[in-house]
Amino acid sequence: MNATPELDREQGSAFQPKFDAAGLLSAVVVDAESKAVLMLAFMDREALDATIATGEAHFHSRSRGRLWKKGETSGHVLTVKRILVDCDQDALVLECAAAGPTCHTGAVSCFYRTLRDGSLQNVKT
Amino acid sequence: MNATPELDREQGSAFQPKFDAAGLLSAVVVDAESKAVLMLAFMDREALDATIATGEAHFHSRSRGRLWKKGETSGHVLTVKRILVDCDQDALVLECAAAGPTCHTGAVSCFYRTLRDGSLQNVKT
Repeated sequence: MNATPELDREQGSAFQPKFDAAGLLSAVVVDAESKAVLMLAFMDREALDATIATGEAHFHSRSRGRLWKKGETSGHVLTVKRILVDCDQDALVLECAAAGPTCHTGAVSCFYRTLRDGSLQNVKT
Repeated sequence: MNATPELDREQGSAFQPKFDAAGLLSAVVVDAESKAVLMLAFMDREALDATIATGEAHFHSRSRGRLWKKGETSGHVLTVKRILVDCDQDALVLECAAAGPTCHTGAVSCFYRTLRDGSLQNVKT
């Protein structure tokens, strides 16, 4: 019990998610099988709680200013298989099974382009 | 040339990084070989430019309020092999070769714990 709060956050077993000044933390979604990064979004406490309670990924839409269940319109929900937490507990990795393309463009992953010599090229994902 | 700015950003070949209200975008570092997520950090324009110019990952430290070259103290620099850009160009994936453990705790990855039943457990990375 002599650990500093910082050490306890890094080394302890207590889940103490750290939200930033806007009340958000970062969530990286990876495919549970391939480990490919599918998307990156943000969670507030409400989205984190909803994700844990339902086992399906929820985020906070910064543009719409509200809770957003991934797939609520498309049906392409993300079933969370495992959640990884980083050292200072302000970022999560969600290992998920995706019910369809994750990107709203129809791409499997939102990261469908690579930066090369200053311009973007499509990649196979 | 009839595309909306939004469509052009999603489908075009022009690199138009989108920084948020704080002047930042998100960068997910993955191991170029294993594809494991190593860390997540933020870049402002200065950090992005430095990363592209040097081929080594630079970030903006929110806590220190300055440019931060990963490994500047530890020597554990991240050599960038490929940069992926997401649909709306506000997030990057950096596929990197790491010169040592990426986490300041000495762990290979910052994501060394998993959340299970409300508490954290160490995972093999």
